[in-house]
Amino acid sequence: MAAKFEVIKESQECKARLGKLYTPHGIVETPVFMPVGTQATVKAMTPEEVKTLGAQIILANTYHLYLRPGHELIREAGGIHKFMNWNGPILTDSGGFQVFSLGDLRKITEEGVEFRSYIDGSKHFLRPEDSIEIQNCLGSDIIMAFDECTPYPSTWEYTKESMERTGRWAERCKEYHEDWDKQSLFGIVQGGMYKDLREKSAEQITSLNLPGYAIGGLSVGEPKELMYDILEFTTLLLPENKPRYLMGVGSPDYLFESVIRGVDMADCVLPTRIGRNGTVLTSRGKIIIKNGIYKRDFGKLDEECDCYTCTHYSRAYIRHLFNVHEILGARLTTIHNLYFLLKLMENIREAIKQDRLLEYRDEFYKKFGYV
Amino acid sequence: MAAKFEVIKESQECKARLGKLYTPHGIVETPVFMPVGTQATVKAMTPEEVKTLGAQIILANTYHLYLRPGHELIREAGGIHKFMNWNGPILTDSGGFQVFSLGDLRKITEEGVEFRSYIDGSKHFLRPEDSIEIQNCLGSDIIMAFDECTPYPSTWEYTKESMERTGRWAERCKEYHEDWDKQSLFGIVQGGMYKDLREKSAEQITSLNLPGYAIGGLSVGEPKELMYDILEFTTLLLPENKPRYLMGVGSPDYLFESVIRGVDMADCVLPTRIGRNGTVLTSRGKIIIKNGIYKRDFGKLDEECDCYTCTHYSRAYIRHLFNVHEILGARLTTIHNLYFLLKLMENIREAIKQDRLLEYRDEFYKKFGYV
Ligand SMILES: [Zn+2]
Ligand SMILES: [Zn+2]
Repeated sequence: MAAKFEVIKESQECKARLGKLYTPHGIVETPVFMPVGTQATVKAMTPEEVKTLGAQIILANTYHLYLRPGHELIREAGGIHKFMNWNGPILTDSGGFQVFSLGDLRKITEEGVEFRSYIDGSKHFLRPEDSIEIQNCLGSDIIMAFDECTPYPSTWEYTKESMERTGRWAERCKEYHEDWDKQSLFGIVQGGMYKDLREKSAEQITSLNLPGYAIGGLSVGEPKELMYDILEFTTLLLPENKPRYLMGVGSPDYLFESVIRGVDMADCVLPTRIGRNGTVLTSRGKIIIKNGIYKRDFGKLDEECDCYTCTHYSRAYIRHLFNVHEILGARLTTIHNLYFLLKLMENIREAIKQDRLLEYRDEFYKKFGYV
Repeated sequence: MAAKFEVIKESQECKARLGKLYTPHGIVETPVFMPVGTQATVKAMTPEEVKTLGAQIILANTYHLYLRPGHELIREAGGIHKFMNWNGPILTDSGGFQVFSLGDLRKITEEGVEFRSYIDGSKHFLRPEDSIEIQNCLGSDIIMAFDECTPYPSTWEYTKESMERTGRWAERCKEYHEDWDKQSLFGIVQGGMYKDLREKSAEQITSLNLPGYAIGGLSVGEPKELMYDILEFTTLLLPENKPRYLMGVGSPDYLFESVIRGVDMADCVLPTRIGRNGTVLTSRGKIIIKNGIYKRDFGKLDEECDCYTCTHYSRAYIRHLFNVHEILGARLTTIHNLYFLLKLMENIREAIKQDRLLEYRDEFYKKFGYV
C-alpha cells in the first residue's frame, strides 16, 4: 500500500494540522518527529526501546548504508526492516546531503555526483537513478529524490542552477522508481533563501504529483528569522493534501515554529547526538549532566518527566556514568532526550486538537527559557 | 537478615552441590555465576536487562567506586542498590585485587597498602578497616575481607608472608565490621600454589567462623591442571555448610570444573568484556563476529540460543554494527554472552539435580570444541 495522507484537522489558530500518513508498515500520526537511525540503528537503542519511547517512524541514511554494509547486502537480508528489526515505517534520505557535505573532492555534473568515501577515500559516482536503486534495495517505506542541499550562503545564480538541476534529478528519480505501492517517493523543494527560486522549485516539484514533499536547504546555518520566513513562504506553495517534511530540524523551538507553519514531518540527530555527549533536554532548558554541580544531585534529569531514565536514576548516577565513560550513560540520556521530543510532539498534536497550540508554545518557551 | 546458606542437594557423582544463599535482597540459587558491574553498572546493560538474562546477584568493585564517585556519595544516594537501580543481591570485592594490580608504586605494610590512583596518580592508603568502611557505605549484601591476591609465580617465602598478613587483615576486618544482619563478610583463603600454605590459610580463615569463604589467588596465569589441583585441594578444606566462592573465574570449562570440585559462586568480567570486543560464546565455541566471513551470514549468533539477540538479529547485522562502531553491537553481544553463561549455570544446576553433571560437561565440551 502506497503512502497516503489524510488531513484530520486544521488548526483554527495557525497553519498547523493533524494528519495520518498511511504506509506499508503502519500509520503515522502527524505532526511527527522522526528519530534518526543513520547506520540502521538509532544510536545506543534497540528498536523496541525506540518504539516504547513513542517513535512512529524512523529515518535511515542511504549514503552510510550504501558504503557499509552495502545496499545489496541489506536486500539479501530481506530489506532494512528485517535487517535492523524495526517493523514500523522507515524513511530513507537520498544520500545527497552526505555526498555534498561529507565527501571530499566532489564533482557535480548533470549526470550525477562524483565523490570520495569519507571512510577509505575510494571514488564513487552517484546518479539520481543510483540513489533510487539503493533505496529500492533498502526497501524503506518513503524514499527521497536525489537533491543538492544548497549551502548557506550561496549566490542567487548558484542557487538557481543547483535548484534547477535538483528539479531535473527529481524527474529522473520519478522516472526510475517503479514499485510505488511499496515505496513512496517524496520530492524536495530547494531554492535557498531566495523566494523567487523557492516558488519556481515548488512549482516544478509539485507538478510531478508525488505522494509527499520535503523542504530542503533550511536549518543550514541561516538566522532563525530568515529560516522561519522562507519556511512559511515555502509551505504555502505546497499542496494541502500532501505531507510536508522539513528536513534536519529537531530543536524544540524549530519543531514548534515549523508545525505552526504547516509542517507535518521532521527529523534530526539532535536528541541522540547531544544525549551521547551528555547534554539533556529538560522542561527548564538544557543541562550538561557532566558538570560538577550534579555530582551530588539526587533528583531526576527532569522533574516533570516520567521516562524510564527519570523514574529509575538520579542526576548523580548519570553524571557518574558519564564521568567514568560507561555506555549506560549514553543510553539513559538518549532515552530521555528522545522521549522528551516525542512527548513534545504528542503534546503538540493534542494542542492542535484543542486549538491551543500557540498558548502551549508560549508556556513551553517560558519554562524552557527561550526568549 | 544476614546471608545464610543451605545445601539442598549433594551430587552423587562429584563434589558439586545445589544450594540456596539467603541475602537481604533475595535468595540466590547456587552454583551461581555473578556478572560484574565494576563501576556500579554491568557494562552496556540496564539492571532490568541483567535480571531478565537470569542474573541473580551481581558484583561491584570497591576500588573503582571508592575512587569514583566515592563511597560517601553512594551512601548519601541511599546505597549502591538504589544508586544503580539493582534491587537484587550485590557482592562487593575488597578492593585488594585492584590495589595490587592497578596501582603504581604500591607499598605494603602490616597496617595496609599505599597506592596511587590509576586515574590521576593521587596517593591513597587503604587499611583493612578502610575497605570494610567503604563496603559498609556501599551497602552491598556480601562484603569481602581485604586481602592480597598473591601473584603467580611467587616464592614459597613470599606467599607465606603474604598469606599470613591476609589472615591478620581478615581478623581486623571481622573486628571492624558491625552490621552483620545487613552485610555478610566473607573471608578469603590464599596460599598461592603451595598446598601447605593453602592448608594453613584455610585453617586460620575458617577459624573466624564467617558466613562464607572465597578461594583467592587462582586463575592468575597458572596452568589449568595446577589450578584444578589447588582448587580441589582447597575446597576440601572448607566447611560444607558455608558457600564457597571462587574469584575471577568465568570461562565455561573453569565454571564446570569448579562446580564439580565444590564451588558455589563465581564471577568474571569475561562475558561482558569479550562481548564488547566482538567475541561471542556459542555452543560450538567462540566466534569473532567482526570477521569478514560473517558479512553475509544471516543466521543467528548461536543456532541453539533463544536470547533476545539471537531471536531478533543476524550475524551479518551484528557484524555490521561492530564494523561501524555502533553501541548496539556491544549491547547485543553482551546480552548473548551473559545469557550464555547464566543459562549454562542454570543447566549445570539442573544437571546436578539429575546427577548427570559429568555427562552434561562431556557433551558440552565436545560440542564447544574443548579437547
Ligand atoms: Zn526523562
Ligand atoms: Zn543468544
